[in-house]
Amino acid sequence: MLEVEVKYSVDAFAALEAALARWGAPLGPPRRDADHYFNAPDRDFARTDEAFRVRSVGAKNYVTYKGPKRDRETKTRLEIEVALAEGEEAAADFRRLVTHLGYKPSGIVRKSRRVAHCERDGFPLQVCLDEVDNLGRFAELEVVAPEERYEAAKALVLAAAHELGLTQVERRSYLEMVLATSAGADAG
Amino acid sequence: MLEVEVKYSVDAFAALEAALARWGAPLGPPRRDADHYFNAPDRDFARTDEAFRVRSVGAKNYVTYKGPKRDRETKTRLEIEVALAEGEEAAADFRRLVTHLGYKPSGIVRKSRRVAHCERDGFPLQVCLDEVDNLGRFAELEVVAPEERYEAAKALVLAAAHELGLTQVERRSYLEMVLATSAGADAG
Repeated sequence: MLEVEVKYSVDAFAALEAALARWGAPLGPPRRDADHYFNAPDRDFARTDEAFRVRSVGAKNYVTYKGPKRDRETKTRLEIEVALAEGEEAAADFRRLVTHLGYKPSGIVRKSRRVAHCERDGFPLQVCLDEVDNLGRFAELEVVAPEERYEAAKALVLAAAHELGLTQVERRSYLEMVLATSAGADAG
Repeated sequence: MLEVEVKYSVDAFAALEAALARWGAPLGPPRRDADHYFNAPDRDFARTDEAFRVRSVGAKNYVTYKGPKRDRETKTRLEIEVALAEGEEAAADFRRLVTHLGYKPSGIVRKSRRVAHCERDGFPLQVCLDEVDNLGRFAELEVVAPEERYEAAKALVLAAAHELGLTQVERRSYLEMVLATSAGADAG
């Protein structure tokens, strides 16, 4: 399956919250994500445009691989996510395991996320309102679609973003932005 | 933690079953293990004496890293194991995920395993009676011990093996043996 995704920088969430309510897509309660990213021993994911991370959401843990982005307008890419055992120990053990395989921690992204779900044109659309530590506010729209529905899914997320009044496209990942920020801080 | 382990080839299990009963360590019911091993993109685990596998035991799944063996008498090594989500789909997804990271399937080991637990000299000792598909019967004795109790744990597993009458030491992993067998079959 493909993760067909667009991301926008936003100044405030109020207008988005109102639009989602009109769509009949209420936002869930905020959750805290801690995403630990790793770089590979055999290639540089910053160059190959891949990502490998362990995400902890409360007690739940997930390991995720993301392939290179497919086009220039969206952040569409292959995504494979598998749940690990719950709890801090399982997450720490898995991070230690991949370190022994040669993976190096590349950065941690922490954010508060609220998620709304709705259906549009037969696709399950997910809208995330993110407050990312030290970065600011963002809205992500995402559809998970099979390869053969890629173009339709892409048109749909772009139309939905337009309808929500989103204009400031952000193509960089949160990890790239966090690393750019800390590099700036280091330089300063 | 270290996995302090010895393995022996055995002709039959009857004498071992009787000895374990005398120890008050009854064998659990047989379970089927399917171990999918992978080789790394940046090094050859057969040369570095490491192992990386996804084990499925019924619906349960585990991902395991094993470091190089520490000594010549036992199979002692670092072991990190983390449970994945249950079910065949999670195991298949995880195997697909590591393939995208560049790992290559190196072999599958399938076996029926019965496990007995007992305590000896304050250590929790695990005895496994394994019938490995196409390889035969083996007994494994294992203690998981902290680094500082390595020598005591090693002495204990060797003494317990002696007491059980085990003599035919097998240092090779099941994977190595499976690969040797299939290489022979290929050559024939």
